[in-house]
Amino acid sequence: MALTFSAFAQQALVNSGPVVSPEINADGTVTFRYLSVKAESVQVSGDFLPNQKIQTPAGEYEIPGVADMKKVDNGLWQYTTPEAVEPEFYNYFFVVDGNRELDLNNVFVNRDVATLTSVLLVPGPNVDATNDSGYLTPGKVKADLYAIQDVPHGTVSKVWYHSDVAGFDRRMTIYTPAEYDGVKRFPVVYILHGMGGDEDAWVTQGRATQILDNLIAKGLAEPMIAVFPNGNISQEAAPLENATNYDRPTMSLPNTMDGKFETSFPEIINFVDSHYQTLADKHHRAVCGLSMGGFHTLYLTINYPDTFDYSGMFSSAIGNFADLSVSDLYSDLDGKLATYYSKNPALLWVGCGSSDFLYEQNKEFRETLDKGKYPYTYVETSGGHIWKNWRIYLSDFLPLLFK
Amino acid sequence: MALTFSAFAQQALVNSGPVVSPEINADGTVTFRYLSVKAESVQVSGDFLPNQKIQTPAGEYEIPGVADMKKVDNGLWQYTTPEAVEPEFYNYFFVVDGNRELDLNNVFVNRDVATLTSVLLVPGPNVDATNDSGYLTPGKVKADLYAIQDVPHGTVSKVWYHSDVAGFDRRMTIYTPAEYDGVKRFPVVYILHGMGGDEDAWVTQGRATQILDNLIAKGLAEPMIAVFPNGNISQEAAPLENATNYDRPTMSLPNTMDGKFETSFPEIINFVDSHYQTLADKHHRAVCGLSMGGFHTLYLTINYPDTFDYSGMFSSAIGNFADLSVSDLYSDLDGKLATYYSKNPALLWVGCGSSDFLYEQNKEFRETLDKGKYPYTYVETSGGHIWKNWRIYLSDFLPLLFK
Repeated sequence: MALTFSAFAQQALVNSGPVVSPEINADGTVTFRYLSVKAESVQVSGDFLPNQKIQTPAGEYEIPGVADMKKVDNGLWQYTTPEAVEPEFYNYFFVVDGNRELDLNNVFVNRDVATLTSVLLVPGPNVDATNDSGYLTPGKVKADLYAIQDVPHGTVSKVWYHSDVAGFDRRMTIYTPAEYDGVKRFPVVYILHGMGGDEDAWVTQGRATQILDNLIAKGLAEPMIAVFPNGNISQEAAPLENATNYDRPTMSLPNTMDGKFETSFPEIINFVDSHYQTLADKHHRAVCGLSMGGFHTLYLTINYPDTFDYSGMFSSAIGNFADLSVSDLYSDLDGKLATYYSKNPALLWVGCGSSDFLYEQNKEFRETLDKGKYPYTYVETSGGHIWKNWRIYLSDFLPLLFK
Repeated sequence: MALTFSAFAQQALVNSGPVVSPEINADGTVTFRYLSVKAESVQVSGDFLPNQKIQTPAGEYEIPGVADMKKVDNGLWQYTTPEAVEPEFYNYFFVVDGNRELDLNNVFVNRDVATLTSVLLVPGPNVDATNDSGYLTPGKVKADLYAIQDVPHGTVSKVWYHSDVAGFDRRMTIYTPAEYDGVKRFPVVYILHGMGGDEDAWVTQGRATQILDNLIAKGLAEPMIAVFPNGNISQEAAPLENATNYDRPTMSLPNTMDGKFETSFPEIINFVDSHYQTLADKHHRAVCGLSMGGFHTLYLTINYPDTFDYSGMFSSAIGNFADLSVSDLYSDLDGKLATYYSKNPALLWVGCGSSDFLYEQNKEFRETLDKGKYPYTYVETSGGHIWKNWRIYLSDFLPLLFK
């Protein structure tokens, strides 16, 4: 039987060579390997390395650092981290003679907008992620929540609904908790992506369904339905999932921050409430989002002040990114905040990284809230406009809902 | 606003350079591009090229051909097919100085067992895919079924069920048709993968949910629920989707063809019938599978002769791959075939490629059926043990169900 293994696979001839990469070693260091006889230089770059700073037209920007790999033998290039790598969900790639390449000995690949990366998941508890009482410490990485644990798993569905506002069917991702049985009703959190993202982003890069499974199983969050809409109202679905077939990911989409998505949002809520066993009232409905999704979250929250009792703004693109005159939805921030707060919302949660390029704008927003003496929760982390922070914020936000 | 685009994406700095690859040209040819200043040779390999033959311990095996790319300018390597590429769902990769690399200007990546490839979808009707009456021509590529069309789309869910036989929760993929509303009941087809595959394989490489959407929308197949179980009973879920987190795809799994999966199958049927609006009887239940999944299909069909009215065996691993003495489920083929046929099944469908390494074994199986004067439908295609054939077989099989 062994003789026929290679041909007996589905179709693939399997790359079952001796190269294991990445390898998490017993001491917690990680070894990356790449096989090339001809390459003259091979590097590894990833967010497990200290950041490097680059200059862009938008200003200084931090990107993952780079480490040289060494040719050890027979064309095998190798790099081992000098110290144990902290538990976290990392992205990395190789730079081979100046060219960006994936680690093809690792089938774990993610896409962020148009960029593919290899993935390194270092599971395990983080030292400072939970305090002595067993509660989560805000602002800290909680990689055990990002890993798939031996706990009951919810269902993750790709669902199409019709949007009259858009004029076509659109796709969203819906998570129902493990105990969802079609009878019992659950609260709902709407989780929104950033510019260039789509209905897959929070699930792939955000590890949102793992975070939900684990928080619920640990009793740290209420069982809830989570909805991940596509916030690009001009788009049917994620790239390669719609009828144009060959659309490529782009951030140059129309109608991203002009009110059209917020106008269409009641269609999403109506679809969810009519197709799932939801608790369809303000007290059992939350919304949160990252970057552009934080902008959407703000204007959904204050324009529909009877809809969401809990709102989470993660590294939000508030400020001068959108032309706020384009829609009445974006007018009269002060008045709408006053109305919103007059209805005693349960939670407005704001998170931002201290080196985020949107930090000042988030600070100004907090000053607006302070001036109105409006209560909110604020968590500041280190680092910039990165998924590491958004996974932390989601992990911190979800346990506060529906209590 | 344009100034902030690069930093305003979710996290990614987007590779938005001038390199478009692959590009389907107006004349139907396809151009592949790869940027490398230092590479000394770059090739493209994919199943859009004529196959090459290689020798393996298992015998002669066909794999995709290779074409040289030319360095045209500034380190840009390029290859354009000499003729229009037939509509089809292709896999390809680059070979850079002897090393296999993905096309990172193309975010469309699939995994087959442990092998990642870039994907080229050439949509469009195939000349000989439908005959004059508008019916599908058996045995021909139908790439318009593999593309996402502007038609109503079903829901695709990743669902966990408990298996007492396995001793743990297991994951499967479930497709419900666009008109599924939780009230109306539908027939069910169970679709099984090959060795090394999992509950994702038919959806990613097989384009099964696109095929279902399109056949149903065209009125060529009945609306139906499709269930894609994981046929590796020792496994919770696809690689990277279970609690070990770092399991790698392998074909060296235990209990693949020893009766344990077939024994557990009633658990899957019971879960589906109790959680979905199914028509839960033999006349509304079908099973099919490729390679190992064809083996599973055969033994599920004849061991549970009152369960499935329609069975499809695609490039089936019947013959001497399994130790048939390991389970009573695999004994007495002749007697079980006699019992099965005595109950007048609606369809046994057999498909195989003329150069499949399993061709002789499928021929022997057909001779067994012929000897018993047992009716069956047989479709023979060109080519070997490849996804191209399995997409054809599924497209041909589904329209025959539940009529």
